[in-house]
Amino acid sequence: MIAPDMATMLAFVFTDAAVTAPVLQDLLREAVGSSFNCLTVDSDMSTSDTLLLFATGEARNAPIETTTSAAARAFAAALATVCRELAILVARDGEGATKLVTVEVEGAVSDASARRIALSIANSPLVKTAIHGQDANWGRVAMAVGKAGEPVELAALGIAFGGHAVARDGGAVPDLDEAPIARHLAGREVTITVRVGHGPGRARVWTCDLSHAYIDINGSYRS
Amino acid sequence: MIAPDMATMLAFVFTDAAVTAPVLQDLLREAVGSSFNCLTVDSDMSTSDTLLLFATGEARNAPIETTTSAAARAFAAALATVCRELAILVARDGEGATKLVTVEVEGAVSDASARRIALSIANSPLVKTAIHGQDANWGRVAMAVGKAGEPVELAALGIAFGGHAVARDGGAVPDLDEAPIARHLAGREVTITVRVGHGPGRARVWTCDLSHAYIDINGSYRS
Repeated sequence: MIAPDMATMLAFVFTDAAVTAPVLQDLLREAVGSSFNCLTVDSDMSTSDTLLLFATGEARNAPIETTTSAAARAFAAALATVCRELAILVARDGEGATKLVTVEVEGAVSDASARRIALSIANSPLVKTAIHGQDANWGRVAMAVGKAGEPVELAALGIAFGGHAVARDGGAVPDLDEAPIARHLAGREVTITVRVGHGPGRARVWTCDLSHAYIDINGSYRS
Repeated sequence: MIAPDMATMLAFVFTDAAVTAPVLQDLLREAVGSSFNCLTVDSDMSTSDTLLLFATGEARNAPIETTTSAAARAFAAALATVCRELAILVARDGEGATKLVTVEVEGAVSDASARRIALSIANSPLVKTAIHGQDANWGRVAMAVGKAGEPVELAALGIAFGGHAVARDGGAVPDLDEAPIARHLAGREVTITVRVGHGPGRARVWTCDLSHAYIDINGSYRS
């Protein structure tokens, strides 16, 4: 590879199903939108990220020739699951990662807006170091929501770690019991859920924490 | 402070000159555009960044009442210098910084486009760790140019460290002498200069490298 340090990703997915090439292309684009394109380790893009989907036809089914048939939808659902699992594996295996972090945003004005907010949180070095330090620092999450520049209803802002709310309706949760949150943050999988309003938009992205090993891997050698 | 970990910045600038308040405001906005707003440590915003400018009038000059007079332009130049020096001090003092990094972009379609490209480079964790590791990894700089999403003439792309070109006219410089580049990267001040085309747009921003200490400062405590 030309630049293996850039987390160059080559993904190959095979199915025995008989599916025509245009349908495969459409369904793959659909699956990527909620999997590989919702993945970030450090916001930096690889020069050669590749995802290829092959249909061998070995299953000898009646070929899937549209994206809307029942068979196509069942195939699309399975494909989305596979892509999501692969994307999560990439985040879990991010340079220096000690924790898989799932960021969920809901109540945004659109799915695209929710995704931009979720990526702003997932790419924030201050959020990623806080998670590494097992710190329920929701001020940093709120900061990352703000810097995304998307429409947000401040009075509706809510933030939870592992399902435990730390902020609700725009303010801190009173008399917060931190014990279950600390237990969640001590684990290998952390979920940050953020409500930014009452809109229909939602997104889920995956990332990892930012540790010393990220710097060792990316800074302690000469290319 | 509410969140001292977020590099909350309070800057106060005083002048003895007599300048009216509206002129002060206009000149400060002008100065900030090429100083504090060209500064990034980690892309994360503070909740309370503040810059206040006071004119005491102690100099007993004829009050500066327009932004265009010779006196106003002289004052504006001095103000810009002070703001730039303060902004550079913030970058130099960034969490865990071991190097001050100046990113210069030239040849962009506009100054605004150049600034977005420069900030993309300055905020890239892969660029920042490469600088920390004293690695003239210009592929990462090219990656950060690309992910900015701005118009770029690939055939004109040029990248230099400390004035020593590593890429020119869209390709690697042949038979590169790495010794002077290595000496530059070993220093406390690193300059990355990037040509992205033949347009009139240019920008200069300041940042720092990404070190273990950044993670210690931001991840190794509980808020």
